[in-house]
Order: sequence, then structure tokens, then C-alpha cells
Amino acid sequence: MSKPFEVAMLFYDYMTALDAIGPYEVFRLMPNTVIRTVSSRPGLIRVDAGYQLLNAEHSLDDVPAPDLIFVPGSGHIAPLLENAAVLEWLRQAHTTSKWTVSVCTGAFALGKAGILQGLQATTHWASLEHLPVVGATPVQERMVRQGKVVTAAGVSAGIDLALEIAGLEFGATTAQAIQLGIEYDPHPPFDTGTPSKATPELLAMTRELMRSAPKIEP
Amino acid sequence: MSKPFEVAMLFYDYMTALDAIGPYEVFRLMPNTVIRTVSSRPGLIRVDAGYQLLNAEHSLDDVPAPDLIFVPGSGHIAPLLENAAVLEWLRQAHTTSKWTVSVCTGAFALGKAGILQGLQATTHWASLEHLPVVGATPVQERMVRQGKVVTAAGVSAGIDLALEIAGLEFGATTAQAIQLGIEYDPHPPFDTGTPSKATPELLAMTRELMRSAPKIEP
Repeated sequence: MSKPFEVAMLFYDYMTALDAIGPYEVFRLMPNTVIRTVSSRPGLIRVDAGYQLLNAEHSLDDVPAPDLIFVPGSGHIAPLLENAAVLEWLRQAHTTSKWTVSVCTGAFALGKAGILQGLQATTHWASLEHLPVVGATPVQERMVRQGKVVTAAGVSAGIDLALEIAGLEFGATTAQAIQLGIEYDPHPPFDTGTPSKATPELLAMTRELMRSAPKIEP
Repeated sequence: MSKPFEVAMLFYDYMTALDAIGPYEVFRLMPNTVIRTVSSRPGLIRVDAGYQLLNAEHSLDDVPAPDLIFVPGSGHIAPLLENAAVLEWLRQAHTTSKWTVSVCTGAFALGKAGILQGLQATTHWASLEHLPVVGATPVQERMVRQGKVVTAAGVSAGIDLALEIAGLEFGATTAQAIQLGIEYDPHPPFDTGTPSKATPELLAMTRELMRSAPKIEP
């Protein structure tokens, strides 16, 4: 069997769990693929709500040249953007990656590492307007592909992104089988998943809900 | 503030990560809600693919009477069905719960605990035909509600289930805000997420993909 396709998923305190675990579930069904959870501090990870929910198995140095770099987002991304070891790892790994992708505000880490300079990109709708700060042109889409760099919208958008990558890397039929494997035939009971489908009142309520949810104290 | 709404999420080795983390991301945005990850062996959890990806913070005894009991599934559910401590916890906690819910093959744990006796239920499409073994009548739906017992289809169906519960418990507007918070406006690149949308060849390929994916050796 050929060398496995290596996925490095960056884990860090404050991350949003579903940003990573949605795509993880797609990646783990890709043929001949290994998934490395990497962190500048391997071990237990406190997610944004404060729970010790996740675990990173590897240091950044363990996985210097993955085929796919994956960066999840966070409602409190600022500390990651000051983590010099992570930014340097992103820069280096990006020089050899086949794919460099983010979900939600993970785009800002790619941006801070210089990877989005001059590119179109997307992120969680509540942070979209800030993308020019890291050199990117904001686009309100579910996902934005610019060569090997792919950014997705907020949280659940990572599942769609991962299926897209699975299709590009392993072919549409494999991606379709993975979709069936995770029974991804979405039927949300409501239809308010993006700002264009929400009233101003619902947008305001959502910002308050995100602000007031339990979290690690920064 | 009134007593928080307490969610107990059962974690166990071999579990499918997204089964739990999709709903988790919805639950953590519900107002005045605490989430307890519980296990008969708290600590690091090896998910079905073998990675030490998750962590359970509490023992079963820590959370004897949650408002919501949540049971994720696994591609290798058999050991959980022989775990007497878990089954007894499920039986006891179910006597006082407001909601008792499962995703994917988690339904079989509810069933083994006697909770699905005489009820309609659903599970991952690949296991649906086996539900009568635990006394349930199989229904091929995204989710099946029978009073306070709600079962969902495979893996990603948990997100839809959790939004439904959020709406029933906290009102439709709150659930809509949560949907917007996790930007759940699904746009899968394919439309093959349920058996009725798949060819026999794709079904066979998917079974093989699920069988051959990396896993903990049972």
C-alpha cells in the first residue's frame, strides 16, 4: 500500500469542537488516510465552552509535512493568533501541503500566517467583515476554494468542506460513499442557518446567545 | 437563575465522535445548560477509528438524574451492550429524565436497557433491520419521537435531533438562533446521504468503506 494520506488537525484551547469533529468523521472514512491531532501543547484540550472535551495526540514537530492542514475556529481566536509556534508550523507545513483548509474563524490563523494574502476567503458570518485585517477578501459562501487553500463558513460548514476535499482527492464516488456512511442527508427542523435567512432580531439574539454561552474565561 | 438544564452525554470506547459532538455543539448554546460527559471509565476515550480523540469528565455516579440522557452510536456497539453499569445507569436515569435520546446505533443501548420496548425507533440505515432484537419497531426516518424518547438515524442526524430538542425545550426561536450560531445551512456537494438516494453499488461500496476504515481492534 502506498504512503498514507496524512491529515494534521490543529487542536488548541478555546477551539469549537464541531469545527473539527465534523470534518474528522469524513476524513476517517477516506481510504488509506491517517489523522494526526496536533497541538503546541498536546494532551487534553478545553473547548470554547470550557469543557475538557478533546485530546491532541501529537506535538507540532511530530507532523511537519502533512498532506492536509486543517485549522478549526473558535469564538475566542485571539490567543491562537499570538501563538508563534503554531504560526511558524502553519507557514512551514503549507510549503509542502496538498491542501490547507480552515473552518469558521480558523481562517484568521491561516491569514495571520500569511497564507490568505490576496486570496478570497470565508469564515463564520459574524466575523466575515474582519477578514481584510489578514489580507483576505471576504466572500459570503459556504466554502471558498483558491487553489489548494479552502476556507469554509461557520462550524457545521466543515462537513461540507471535508466532503468536497474527499471528492477532489479520492473521487466523487468515494465522497458519496462517505456521505452515505455518515448518513448526511440533512433535515434541519428550521431553515435559519445563514444570515440571509434570518431576521435582524434573530441575528441579534444569536450574537447574544454566542456571547453568553458558557466559556473558558479568557 | 433557576437550576440548569443538565445534559448527560454517555462516552465510551469505540464511539463515533460526530454522533456526540454534533449534538454537543447545539446543547452548549442552549440557555442555562450544563453538559456532563459521563463514562463507566472516565478519562481518555478511544473512538471507533482508534484515535484517543475525546475525554469523559465524569463517572456515571456523578450524574444520576440528568434532564437529558444522550447516547451516541458506534460501528462496534457490542461491548457497550454488555456493560452492566451503563445499562443500569440508563434504566435508572430514564425514570426521571425529561428526554432520553440516541443517535445512530446508540439506539441499541437504549433498547438493551429496555427503554425501546414496544416503541418505534430508528438508527443507522446499515443496522435498522436489527432493531426488533431489542423490542423496537424500525422506522426509516431522520428521527423518531415517541414521547420523551427520541432516536435519530446515523452519525450526522444527531445535529437535526439536537435542534429539535432545543426547540421543544427552549422554543423555536432559540433553536433557530442556535442553528444560525453553528451556521447550519447544509450544502453537501453530493446528494447521497440516505439509502433511498443511493445505487446498490454505492451501498455496497459504503459498507466496505465502513468495514475497512481504521478502527480499534475489538
